[in-house]
Amino acid sequence: MRLSQFHLRTTKETPADAELVSHQLMLRAGMIRKLAAGLYTWSPLGLRVLRKVETVVREEMDRAGAIEMIMPTIQPRELWEESGRWEKFGDQLLKIKDRKEAEYCYSPTAEEAVTDFARQELNSYKQLPVNFYQIQTKFRDEIRPRFGVMRAREFVMKDAYSFHLTDEDLVREYHNMHAAYTRIFTRLGLDFRAVQADSGAIGGDASQEFQVLADSGEDSIAFSTGSDYAANMEKAQAAAPAPRPAAGEAMNKVATPTQRTCEEVAALLGIPLQRTVKSVAVMADDAASGQHFVLALVRGDHAVNEVKLGKVPGLAGYRLATEAEIREHLGSEPGFLGPIDAKKAIRVVADRDVAAMADFVVGANEVGFHIAGVNWGRDLPEPHDIADIRNVVEGDKAADGGEIRIVRGIEVGHVFQLGRKYSEAMQFTVLDENGKATAPTMGCYGIGVSRIVAAAIEQNHDANGIVWPAPMAPWAVAVCVINPKNDAAVNDAAQRLLAELRGNGIDAVLDDRGLRPGAMFADIELIGIPHRVVVSERGLAAGTFEYRARRGAEAENLGREELFARLLS
Amino acid sequence: MRLSQFHLRTTKETPADAELVSHQLMLRAGMIRKLAAGLYTWSPLGLRVLRKVETVVREEMDRAGAIEMIMPTIQPRELWEESGRWEKFGDQLLKIKDRKEAEYCYSPTAEEAVTDFARQELNSYKQLPVNFYQIQTKFRDEIRPRFGVMRAREFVMKDAYSFHLTDEDLVREYHNMHAAYTRIFTRLGLDFRAVQADSGAIGGDASQEFQVLADSGEDSIAFSTGSDYAANMEKAQAAAPAPRPAAGEAMNKVATPTQRTCEEVAALLGIPLQRTVKSVAVMADDAASGQHFVLALVRGDHAVNEVKLGKVPGLAGYRLATEAEIREHLGSEPGFLGPIDAKKAIRVVADRDVAAMADFVVGANEVGFHIAGVNWGRDLPEPHDIADIRNVVEGDKAADGGEIRIVRGIEVGHVFQLGRKYSEAMQFTVLDENGKATAPTMGCYGIGVSRIVAAAIEQNHDANGIVWPAPMAPWAVAVCVINPKNDAAVNDAAQRLLAELRGNGIDAVLDDRGLRPGAMFADIELIGIPHRVVVSERGLAAGTFEYRARRGAEAENLGREELFARLLS
Repeated sequence: MRLSQFHLRTTKETPADAELVSHQLMLRAGMIRKLAAGLYTWSPLGLRVLRKVETVVREEMDRAGAIEMIMPTIQPRELWEESGRWEKFGDQLLKIKDRKEAEYCYSPTAEEAVTDFARQELNSYKQLPVNFYQIQTKFRDEIRPRFGVMRAREFVMKDAYSFHLTDEDLVREYHNMHAAYTRIFTRLGLDFRAVQADSGAIGGDASQEFQVLADSGEDSIAFSTGSDYAANMEKAQAAAPAPRPAAGEAMNKVATPTQRTCEEVAALLGIPLQRTVKSVAVMADDAASGQHFVLALVRGDHAVNEVKLGKVPGLAGYRLATEAEIREHLGSEPGFLGPIDAKKAIRVVADRDVAAMADFVVGANEVGFHIAGVNWGRDLPEPHDIADIRNVVEGDKAADGGEIRIVRGIEVGHVFQLGRKYSEAMQFTVLDENGKATAPTMGCYGIGVSRIVAAAIEQNHDANGIVWPAPMAPWAVAVCVINPKNDAAVNDAAQRLLAELRGNGIDAVLDDRGLRPGAMFADIELIGIPHRVVVSERGLAAGTFEYRARRGAEAENLGREELFARLLS
Repeated sequence: MRLSQFHLRTTKETPADAELVSHQLMLRAGMIRKLAAGLYTWSPLGLRVLRKVETVVREEMDRAGAIEMIMPTIQPRELWEESGRWEKFGDQLLKIKDRKEAEYCYSPTAEEAVTDFARQELNSYKQLPVNFYQIQTKFRDEIRPRFGVMRAREFVMKDAYSFHLTDEDLVREYHNMHAAYTRIFTRLGLDFRAVQADSGAIGGDASQEFQVLADSGEDSIAFSTGSDYAANMEKAQAAAPAPRPAAGEAMNKVATPTQRTCEEVAALLGIPLQRTVKSVAVMADDAASGQHFVLALVRGDHAVNEVKLGKVPGLAGYRLATEAEIREHLGSEPGFLGPIDAKKAIRVVADRDVAAMADFVVGANEVGFHIAGVNWGRDLPEPHDIADIRNVVEGDKAADGGEIRIVRGIEVGHVFQLGRKYSEAMQFTVLDENGKATAPTMGCYGIGVSRIVAAAIEQNHDANGIVWPAPMAPWAVAVCVINPKNDAAVNDAAQRLLAELRGNGIDAVLDDRGLRPGAMFADIELIGIPHRVVVSERGLAAGTFEYRARRGAEAENLGREELFARLLS
């Protein structure tokens, strides 16, 4: 490949509307161009990188025994009605009417389509297990598409779906896919972690996200210094608290005329924030109790995690209480709420840490007052529910004895044990060994192929541009020719070197555009080529090539043998 | 690859609703499954074939110097408004509203998107010429999707777009693409023809279609036995007629009480059909004459070609005249129309062959009568316009001295000189050598990648199934094992053979599913594998393998050397 025959267009200016480094650098390197909000054209340069990622993903999926196929991007409403997701998926589902007013959507994921394919193809346990995958364009109508291809509306995803007769076999394939994903992200040269994710009703480690670590990541990940434990915020748990100490203080009402937050109250009373308790008023609605008022309690320095709170029995789909509801049940207003002296009977859900506190401070349900020295069982009944309902924080003790650390990550993969949700909803059964119709259990496994490109840049760049991990680089080596048009000998030598490199299986490109060295080198650094070799008149005379690694500080003059040894190592 | 680890599902029954052989066989072989009307999932087997086609297309496009990139499938209305195609494209354009009610379409082709990309990327003549291509999913909302992937709504297309400073350079690239297409279809092993197509205002051979010849094809193609001349029906021309003979008969009115068609009149009068003239009444509307009545004349054995007639000056957008309009201008009714004794002044457009006739028969503009022995210049004025307005027919003399033949074809490719239509409409200019802003001229080049798969089957099948041209086959060789589970020696020998074949670069698959030989062989034939090798206990004892070519009549027992010689030849 010669760059004079390729299309490369780089810019020095940082685009004004690009916030993330990866978005800026992809635009500056000319990898992508915006067509409309959340819609990007991948230039020839960008596509080379995208294809390199696809290739690694495909090779490892194939190696893991998954079988590639491809499903339509446009899918009929009827299918999505069968699963109930036509309504449930929400506004991210791009809905479409065709010329006959029949309704379709642009596939954001393909559980329905693959289950429809499977029910046409599979009718016996002998055909199981099977794992189908595709690398296909997807669409999610993000309300605020941004960050370039990091959160584009149209994107490339690898999605795989496995079918099994038994739960045990699903778990086996889940681990198989987990191992394949680990190989994929390792091969791609990314710093990543597999973190436990919330998996709804299935529980256990039935769902894990693969997160590329980067400060700009949208997700928080908690991990432990004591083991390889890692989880997202919805799932991460600290160690259980130490047993509750004995009560030491008497309960006493304190005036807090303008102090509404735990921080303000703690400062006024001169006590640690950890001695205060925050009360969050919500309305729950379940079959057993109907609509009812719930006070959720977390320590003053903690924050409620909505997903965790929603998993407390009866609290699925809860909402925050209105001020009127708060007044009705507690007789007070926000800033002074607490579990004592409610106007009506209320349900109290305490975080595990709150349940283990003594001599703590809560709101008095009276404007301008809090109550200090509060103790469970003495000043108020034991909580109705005790659960982990808070976000972990940096420094929490982990269950494995280590300490919790929190880092930022970009989700690039997800493995999930779906169970029989789709096969049952879509009436897909196979005959088991006994000739009995049974719904197969399913797993699904996604990788954000186009997002990986951006995530890799977030993790691998410097002041001069992108620093690709070798397997993702558009080319491994750039052979730069100084003055190609006026110096036939140099040009010939460069062409020979290119041919030799390619003959050795090295993906090399010749920069024969005839730019001045400074501009040429800046381009090659900006687009992140791992190895640069300069062919010049001076080098030719000395029998050397100037070599510089993208990550290296200095250029070196190397003889032919040395150069090849370096590039092939 | 082992078939026991793959997913194959064949059926014996011919699906009731599949009309075309390719559709039937793709379903029977399990290459595709229907998701909804015109929407198909490509199974693992189908995808292997699709990818083989893609690979050949990609290799030849790269070799021809085109550069791959990829554009979004969802494109904003504003862009399509710029070109005027948002309205003009018609109902095949799938229009979409997003959650914010902004309008988009699913790309049926990408002239607008690539021109938008180009105007962001290109600003100097130094960056030209350039040819961008993509292999991407397209959508056309066909009113009657059918024939499987032959006329699907969602399909895979390779579309390329080139940009040039001059018309000469466009013509050069057009020929370059023509040559690349010829290599692609030749490499794919298809029997095809490049035929001239109508190219609207641009003219010349500015547009050619690549047609795979097949009796089931929807298009008619005319070619000459005298040269490589070939054209579609809108474009094909016969040789000009011989000069008009002298008049020999007197004009005479003949009673044709119930004879309305030329065939009936010729039979009644006992003359050849070639002596009669058919009159077609149409209404034209142009700036010069306003709405006016036109009588188009073709020989009794010929048919008007609508596209050709529409190209006669002033007849663009013509329509058939109503019975009322016919009565107003001719004073008669259909079946008895003619250019003589009209009630009002009319314009007569004669096909070249009609203009060269003498002593011919036309309708008398009076119910129950025709006029025979009619001659131009004597009985009526010379025609206002003389043009080629008819379909060529089998046996026509061609301009090159040969004879016209007509065959059926399936359009799989199209090369087209677009000119400056999009660059001008979308205000895309580059600076030329003199620093002057100039709109580049464009070419576009399409290949129906998924349609090729079906077209190849139409051309290559027999009673037992598909007979793939080697480059499109899912695998080149099937190694069939008799009784794999019970015979370790046979199984080992087959595995060794598979490894050896793959080591020699032969894309072989092992059929280790354990089917009975009959069922196994039927599958391998149905899915069209070019070479079958059977490993059996008996063969092993004799030191031979049973070999059969998919196109061959007989199986042969070959030694190892002979077998490899055959497969590598």
